[in-house]
Amino acid sequence: MSDQDKKPVLTFVTGNPNKLREVQQIVGDDFMFQLQNVAVDLPEYQGDPAHVAAEKCKAAYQQVKTPVIVEDTSLCFNALGGLPGVYIKWFLKGVGHDGLNKMLAGFDDKTAYAQCIFAFQPGEGVEPLLFIGRTDGKIVPARGPTHFGWDPVFQPDGFHTTYAEMESDAKNAISHRGRALAKMAEFFKSHAREVSERMTLEKDWTTS
Amino acid sequence: MSDQDKKPVLTFVTGNPNKLREVQQIVGDDFMFQLQNVAVDLPEYQGDPAHVAAEKCKAAYQQVKTPVIVEDTSLCFNALGGLPGVYIKWFLKGVGHDGLNKMLAGFDDKTAYAQCIFAFQPGEGVEPLLFIGRTDGKIVPARGPTHFGWDPVFQPDGFHTTYAEMESDAKNAISHRGRALAKMAEFFKSHAREVSERMTLEKDWTTS
Repeated sequence: MSDQDKKPVLTFVTGNPNKLREVQQIVGDDFMFQLQNVAVDLPEYQGDPAHVAAEKCKAAYQQVKTPVIVEDTSLCFNALGGLPGVYIKWFLKGVGHDGLNKMLAGFDDKTAYAQCIFAFQPGEGVEPLLFIGRTDGKIVPARGPTHFGWDPVFQPDGFHTTYAEMESDAKNAISHRGRALAKMAEFFKSHAREVSERMTLEKDWTTS
Repeated sequence: MSDQDKKPVLTFVTGNPNKLREVQQIVGDDFMFQLQNVAVDLPEYQGDPAHVAAEKCKAAYQQVKTPVIVEDTSLCFNALGGLPGVYIKWFLKGVGHDGLNKMLAGFDDKTAYAQCIFAFQPGEGVEPLLFIGRTDGKIVPARGPTHFGWDPVFQPDGFHTTYAEMESDAKNAISHRGRALAKMAEFFKSHAREVSERMTLEKDWTTS
C-alpha cells in the first residue's frame, strides 16, 4: 500500500481523464486526497452558474457518497445579461462559432466573460464550496483550431489571440479554468487540517 | 360527497390557479379526474423541450405520488437552431423584448415557433406521456400589452397581430398552449377506460 492509497479519496465526477490529470498536476503530490475520476451522468439544471454548479455537486455526492468535486463552465455575453452562460454548449451546438458572433450583431457591446466553477462537497448534508475563476474578454470571429468548444471565438482582455490560438501553458495561466483550479488548490493547501476535520464531522461546513 | 369527489385525483403542478381553471374548462365536467393544483418547486433541467418536460413530470410525480400533469413552454428561434427554447424565460429576463429582437439582428431568418408541452404521468415507474402543441410565427418588435412574458414579440403565421394584441379566445384557438391542451383533452376523452386501467396497473404504459 503506497502513501497515496492511504489518503482519503476525493472523486472528480467527469468523463474526461485529462481533466483529472490537470487537477492532479496543479494540486501536486502532497495533496491531502487521493484523486480519482468517475464518469456519472449528472442532471444539468437551469439557473445561474453558481446554482447550477452547486446543484450538480449535490447530485454527484448523492451518487458517489464520498467527497466529490464537479466542474461547470459558462460563457457569458454582457450584452445578453450574462447569457448564454451555462447554456453555452447548447448554443454552440445550435448555431456554431459564426452564430455566436451573429447573436451579438445587433449589440455594440461584444464583451464577455468565461467562467469556471469547481464545486466541492466534503460530506453529507453540507452545502458545496464554490471556487470561481473568471476571465474577461470579448467575442470575435473564430480564429485558431476549432476542436475545443468555443475557444476560437473568445479573446481574453490584454491579448490579440483567442483561447484557441494560445499555447496551453499561456492559456492555463490566465484562463477561467486555471484560475478556478488555482483557487481550489490554494484552499486545500491552506485549510488541509480543517478540511480533514470537517470531512469527519460532516456538518457546519462554511465557506472561508 | 359529490360525484366530483368520487373521481380519482389528477394533480396539475402549477402555482397558477388560472392555469388550472383553463384546463378544467377545456376538459369539461365529464372529465374522468377530479383536477386540483398544487404549487411545488420542481427542478428545471437543461435539454430539449421534450426531455425537460418529461423530467419535470417525473420529479413532480415523485413529490405528489398521485397522477400528475405539468406544463413547459418554449420559444424557439429557427435561426438559432431552436434556441432559446426552454431557456426563453432567462433570456426575456436578461435582455427584454428589445434584446430578443436584437439577438436576431444578424440573421435573415426571423421565424420562430412557440411550443407548449403538457406531460402526464399516471403512476409509478411510467414514462410520462407528452402532448405537444406548436404554433409557427416570427419574432417582431414588441406590440401590445407587456404584462405576459414574450407575447408582445411573437406574431403567429397568418396574423398581423402579436399574441399580446389578440383577444384571449382568438389566441387560445391557435396558441401553442391551446393546441397542447386540446390534444391532452382529446386523449383523455378517447382513452378514458384505458387510462383508468393503466392507472391501476401502473405499468406498461405507452403512448398511443
